[in-house]
Amino acid sequence: MKNAREALRTRLTEIADLEAAAALLQWDQATYMPRLGAAARGRTAATLQRLVHERWSDPALGDCIGQLEADATREPDSDEARCLAAARRDHDRATRIPPEFTETAHRHFAATYSAWVDARPRDDFASVAPFLETTLALSREYSSFFPDAEHVADPLIDDSDPGMRATTVRARFDELRAGLVPLVSRIAEATPVDTSCLHRTFAPDRQLAFGAEVIRRLGFDFDRGRQDLTPHPFMTKFSLSDVRITTRVKDDDLSEALFSTIHEAGHAMYEMGIDPSYEATPLAHGTSSGIHESQSRLWENLVARSRGFWRYWYPRLVETFPGSLGNVAPDAFYRAIHHVAPSPIRTDADEVTYNLHVMIRFDLEIELLEGNLAISDLAQAWRDRYRSDLGIEIDGDRDGVLQDVHWFAGFIGGAFQGYTLGNLMAAQFYAAAVTAHPEIPSEIEQGRFETLRGWLTREIYRHGRKYRAEELIERATGRPLEVEPLLTYLRETYEPVYGLR
Amino acid sequence: MKNAREALRTRLTEIADLEAAAALLQWDQATYMPRLGAAARGRTAATLQRLVHERWSDPALGDCIGQLEADATREPDSDEARCLAAARRDHDRATRIPPEFTETAHRHFAATYSAWVDARPRDDFASVAPFLETTLALSREYSSFFPDAEHVADPLIDDSDPGMRATTVRARFDELRAGLVPLVSRIAEATPVDTSCLHRTFAPDRQLAFGAEVIRRLGFDFDRGRQDLTPHPFMTKFSLSDVRITTRVKDDDLSEALFSTIHEAGHAMYEMGIDPSYEATPLAHGTSSGIHESQSRLWENLVARSRGFWRYWYPRLVETFPGSLGNVAPDAFYRAIHHVAPSPIRTDADEVTYNLHVMIRFDLEIELLEGNLAISDLAQAWRDRYRSDLGIEIDGDRDGVLQDVHWFAGFIGGAFQGYTLGNLMAAQFYAAAVTAHPEIPSEIEQGRFETLRGWLTREIYRHGRKYRAEELIERATGRPLEVEPLLTYLRETYEPVYGLR
Repeated sequence: MKNAREALRTRLTEIADLEAAAALLQWDQATYMPRLGAAARGRTAATLQRLVHERWSDPALGDCIGQLEADATREPDSDEARCLAAARRDHDRATRIPPEFTETAHRHFAATYSAWVDARPRDDFASVAPFLETTLALSREYSSFFPDAEHVADPLIDDSDPGMRATTVRARFDELRAGLVPLVSRIAEATPVDTSCLHRTFAPDRQLAFGAEVIRRLGFDFDRGRQDLTPHPFMTKFSLSDVRITTRVKDDDLSEALFSTIHEAGHAMYEMGIDPSYEATPLAHGTSSGIHESQSRLWENLVARSRGFWRYWYPRLVETFPGSLGNVAPDAFYRAIHHVAPSPIRTDADEVTYNLHVMIRFDLEIELLEGNLAISDLAQAWRDRYRSDLGIEIDGDRDGVLQDVHWFAGFIGGAFQGYTLGNLMAAQFYAAAVTAHPEIPSEIEQGRFETLRGWLTREIYRHGRKYRAEELIERATGRPLEVEPLLTYLRETYEPVYGLR
Repeated sequence: MKNAREALRTRLTEIADLEAAAALLQWDQATYMPRLGAAARGRTAATLQRLVHERWSDPALGDCIGQLEADATREPDSDEARCLAAARRDHDRATRIPPEFTETAHRHFAATYSAWVDARPRDDFASVAPFLETTLALSREYSSFFPDAEHVADPLIDDSDPGMRATTVRARFDELRAGLVPLVSRIAEATPVDTSCLHRTFAPDRQLAFGAEVIRRLGFDFDRGRQDLTPHPFMTKFSLSDVRITTRVKDDDLSEALFSTIHEAGHAMYEMGIDPSYEATPLAHGTSSGIHESQSRLWENLVARSRGFWRYWYPRLVETFPGSLGNVAPDAFYRAIHHVAPSPIRTDADEVTYNLHVMIRFDLEIELLEGNLAISDLAQAWRDRYRSDLGIEIDGDRDGVLQDVHWFAGFIGGAFQGYTLGNLMAAQFYAAAVTAHPEIPSEIEQGRFETLRGWLTREIYRHGRKYRAEELIERATGRPLEVEPLLTYLRETYEPVYGLR
């Protein structure tokens, strides 16, 4: 047994190391790689990914896991049993998918991505539609490797949000939409908020220094992480002691770098908070894209847009940009960062309308996978939904169905639900944390975050992948996933801003 | 045959990819990795290195090479035959060394390195001497895996300078020392050169921008490379289209960043100039440490210290630093960058005394390996040689035997000769280039380098590892490796500076 344990550990460490190297290749490509390094880098990254896949699907790994499983059932909630379960899951998923399929799919995704990069500026959905037809067929085929699935979308959803199902997600989303659409309509009829104070001139280096100071105080550990610049912000990690974030900065938009920095730092603090004894095991990761997003959004929105947060930080922000903010009252700034307006682009959306964007994509994915929507009708369906849900007209497909990279670089299905699940969870977690520790809001007003971060670490971070999302939510909040906390938070925050109460 | 060819190609590409990933892990560790990422990074790097070694020593790779060798002998100078020969060499070297030996040695090197980091500031050679005893034993054991070697140092020398032997190197070095020592003595007796103009204030960002502009003009391709900052400058590459250099910059030393930038760019241009069809094969590397160093030193010294070079660049340098250089005449600057003075530290040495430092280390390595010098006598032997060869007294071991990392992070033997071989080759290559193209010096006076770079690319760069050092020298210069070109260059350059002719 001891031998099998050691053999498993050796195999899992090797996988973790190859995954770390693969992640570094990607980080470097996004940050510092010279332009013409791309071709060889693509080859090298593909080799590493193949080696990772070979190791996950190795029958000898399955044997190793099998030998230990009988023993592990005696303590099913131990770290060891849960680690084994995570290894089993990853091994099974790697073996179910034929390597030829993966290769075909990835080749197709690469071709689709190139076609999309070319088509988007030209508003040319027609030229990528044939690629999407194949993507949809491949997505269905992927799903077919999991014959026990209740819904065609479930295996795809389960990939990023283990245990989540189309029916559950749909039920929550319908409930959320029912609460959101009226709120958005009422806001749309109110006097718009003035955001001009966010669009003065803000020196990029000072923005970055201010953002770094904020996240250092939130708990981002610069001895175990760093921040760099990329066109699209992201978080990645190479070990629990090397977790990196990126951001982008615009000199005429104060909110861009600041909130993306806090968002990515939220992802990073989750990974940095994982029990160090999980290092190089399958437990050393966030447990789902929903839980991950809950941590980025909790810090970005529930904490860093709150009035109490800015009571501490706004004077410091004014000190950093005296010329641009010296004559802006705290309340004007607060209102500006709570601007709500239906707009076509998801990634630019405010936190009230954001989930409507996500749910449109989720619903369309389901309809496509179910065969109830044809690719040829997708662009029109997109426009119809933006009209009905957000009340806006989409002019060109560039700002419509072509806006997100997801469907043009991977499967259709499973790519979007995590964003809104995360928002739901963020509100539910934050409410539970404040119930358990009513001093959290007043600490935040003093620029202190230890109690909140402590609660999150205890309830969520340290467990890594040990518990699934629904277990974590139940353990941390005593309730299943609910919609009401988010709706309550949004109403309580935005109704006053727009004079609706 | 076609199958064997493809199988070999697949294996070699996988090795190249793993080597690229391992190199990126190292580059990142030196440039951007957060402080506490080191432990996991060490583990990940070791895993990648193990995977590389497993692949090089795989008997199936040997079979694959074997199948193709019979055919390749028909055209022994074809790319394919030479690639096969290089693969054979790497496979054989990987299989000769037992994996347990490599593991033991690397564990010992890591421990020695830590002890050295600790001992050096304390001038404490005694505390690392026991480590060096083991290192010496391991170095001899390494050598014993090559029972055909003529001299105990040959396998170690052959590792970095394939084909070179202790006797050949020693003969050239003795000849060089005989010419150098009198030159150094005569310079030591002359009026010293005033270097104060290099030690005014020079803004680091302008130094870096100037250096980047210079190497861009030399031929460093920033679309296939980049420069970053590290405490110790180096060159590394991840493909022929991603070759990176690093430098360090001091605001009170103009020569530090400038010449190290040009030096590393010389290494990089060699790699960038390799035939792109060699990508991801064993031919896609510089052929020896001597040839590599010849390219860094040729650009750093023979080109970038020449009067003609500065005829073009000095006005631009003055424009960059008008406050610090506005009142410095070109001749004063030229003399300052040709300052010669015996000093204890190799890496700070001028180009005249530099080779004396290297030859001392080479001789001591040979004596240690032959058993004619004990580790316990090494520090004293070092001091004795510095007194006799350079005429200086070494005060503490920190600036003596403890100064270089090499013996404290690897084998004793083979680590140093490449530096001086490179200087010899640089002078011989440059003389041959100018003989073939007498217009080179006047082009350089106009800030143009195409003819020189073209000659180097044709004669050296493009061939990568196809030819060994001695073949390249013979092909490019029509002569074997000689000492006279370097001595002639040094005499012609330095005698006028010091009023010795």
